[in-house]
Amino acid sequence: MRIVLDAMGSDTCPDPEITAAIEAAKLFGDPIFLVGPVQDLKPRLDSLGVPIESVHLVDASDTITMQDKGMALALKAKRRDSKTSMAVGIDLVKTGEADAFVTAGNTGGAMTTAYFRLETIPGVERPALTATFPVKNGYCIVLDIGANPDCKPEHLLQFAIMGSVYASNVRGINKPRIAILSNGEEGGKGNELVRNAYPLLVESGLNFIGNVEGKELFAGEADVVVTDGFTGNILLKSTEAVAKLIMDIISQQLKSNIISMIGGSLAKPSLVKIKTMLNPDEYGAAPLLGVNGLVLIGHGRSNAHALVSAIKTARQGVDANLLGSIKSAIQENFKRVNIPEVE
Amino acid sequence: MRIVLDAMGSDTCPDPEITAAIEAAKLFGDPIFLVGPVQDLKPRLDSLGVPIESVHLVDASDTITMQDKGMALALKAKRRDSKTSMAVGIDLVKTGEADAFVTAGNTGGAMTTAYFRLETIPGVERPALTATFPVKNGYCIVLDIGANPDCKPEHLLQFAIMGSVYASNVRGINKPRIAILSNGEEGGKGNELVRNAYPLLVESGLNFIGNVEGKELFAGEADVVVTDGFTGNILLKSTEAVAKLIMDIISQQLKSNIISMIGGSLAKPSLVKIKTMLNPDEYGAAPLLGVNGLVLIGHGRSNAHALVSAIKTARQGVDANLLGSIKSAIQENFKRVNIPEVE
Repeated sequence: MRIVLDAMGSDTCPDPEITAAIEAAKLFGDPIFLVGPVQDLKPRLDSLGVPIESVHLVDASDTITMQDKGMALALKAKRRDSKTSMAVGIDLVKTGEADAFVTAGNTGGAMTTAYFRLETIPGVERPALTATFPVKNGYCIVLDIGANPDCKPEHLLQFAIMGSVYASNVRGINKPRIAILSNGEEGGKGNELVRNAYPLLVESGLNFIGNVEGKELFAGEADVVVTDGFTGNILLKSTEAVAKLIMDIISQQLKSNIISMIGGSLAKPSLVKIKTMLNPDEYGAAPLLGVNGLVLIGHGRSNAHALVSAIKTARQGVDANLLGSIKSAIQENFKRVNIPEVE
Repeated sequence: MRIVLDAMGSDTCPDPEITAAIEAAKLFGDPIFLVGPVQDLKPRLDSLGVPIESVHLVDASDTITMQDKGMALALKAKRRDSKTSMAVGIDLVKTGEADAFVTAGNTGGAMTTAYFRLETIPGVERPALTATFPVKNGYCIVLDIGANPDCKPEHLLQFAIMGSVYASNVRGINKPRIAILSNGEEGGKGNELVRNAYPLLVESGLNFIGNVEGKELFAGEADVVVTDGFTGNILLKSTEAVAKLIMDIISQQLKSNIISMIGGSLAKPSLVKIKTMLNPDEYGAAPLLGVNGLVLIGHGRSNAHALVSAIKTARQGVDANLLGSIKSAIQENFKRVNIPEVE
């Protein structure tokens, strides 16, 4: 299996990427394609004595940084001769020289590069970014969490189909429970988008359980929750912010007096465990579903451990034929309801 | 000052309402108008020996329950001869016989009744429901959190004007920092609604600080955050759900072994304090801004203490001339930019 890792992705790149490439090659028994400026990367790998057969260097002289945006970013993403590590790496997937691309770089940059170079799966109008939320007794996959701030009802249907395939094929969830994020559980509730998407989901043949609010989402009542990228992003960032606020207040309160301090230090292992539960890097990266190739995007703050997890998730995606299964599911849906393709 | 309290609002009504009416009358030195079925309420008040001059009973034979919705609710809210406690109470505000109406009942019912009977302030197209979020070192007022799932850019401007007046006049915040909730801080970020509302806020003359994400909101960087009612509702419910999940995990983790259990019991006062911080009933109820009369809506689970707080907030609104000040601010905005009134 041929996984491409962007050497220039994470906030402290390329060290975590180099370590992750070496570890992943050892762990999974397949070489990693590490994409970045060879003149910088080769001496580092040589000094570590990395065997040439475990990490294959692919040269990419340019990078997309966390600061890149707007037109400059679009050009770096789109130009045929682009030499960014993302463009070069994603082109390997496009040409079939590699099976999946993993990056911890600029999310917008990765999405744009993947969208321009791979285009979308036939029948999918918009790629969607997924996130895995820790919920009661498990996880919930939410999409879109930021690729498309404005969506049409058909997009939510496509997200639901892709999310369902991802949950079943990669995560091994039998008949994933699919829901729409809304401001009320009843079918008539929601904004215009949700109200119009609801009947499409009802007729989709998916295991659609209706609308959920935050309460049901975090109670673990759905396996996949679909929403537009604006709302999904608000959901992701505001719940992360609240979790951080609470953990900060707890730390502060536990230092407020000697009794609490003793209590806090005794309870510390439990509190650390909670922090870990709230920030799972078990999956390392989330797939950008809907582009015509396997692309996974991790946090900028990913360390080598998170990157190895990301590579593992990418391998699971390849093993499970995620891309092919999504293509089939989308085609089946078109046949079933005979929706004319939009745009 | 004449505050009307809906006797039939809270989940366990009318007991918390009766207690709150008695306490508020004593505390603030003004009688409370308690609206509900007199034949049920009078014997209870008599048995408690409540002096007639402290709690004035106003008869309302019908109620809006938590189950009422749809057309039946709309009719109860709109019909001129409606005898629900909400309709009768809000009519007292409409006719000028009372200064403000407080309820802990069905939020949709209260909004609908207020909207139909009081209509909106001239220049305000949609009333907005506010919520006060606990944030780092204070509070943040967010609106709309559920009245309007679909909004236009002008609505967000009107919410911002109303929220700014509420924050300054009632909460005593000097030059409230106003922000739009978005999926990115830069001006160009957001969905179509946010991108179109941004320039209106820039030109509004308000202390507009730009877009905020959840991170900035919960870090306390804005005093008032505006958003459409769909996103606001998702924000409210999902952050409540995450807070609950974390506190549940903490309780569970602290019981997981004897050391943690001892730690947890020592730290208990601190943990209780955190729960209190996360569920503030300091303000008891949130105003429905934009209707032509002062209406405050509290949680269904309000107890007598929360209802007394709600009455206090209502009194502050009357004292601060909240309604008159919002009217002036909206009129000034129309004069300033000469926006033709929409709809």
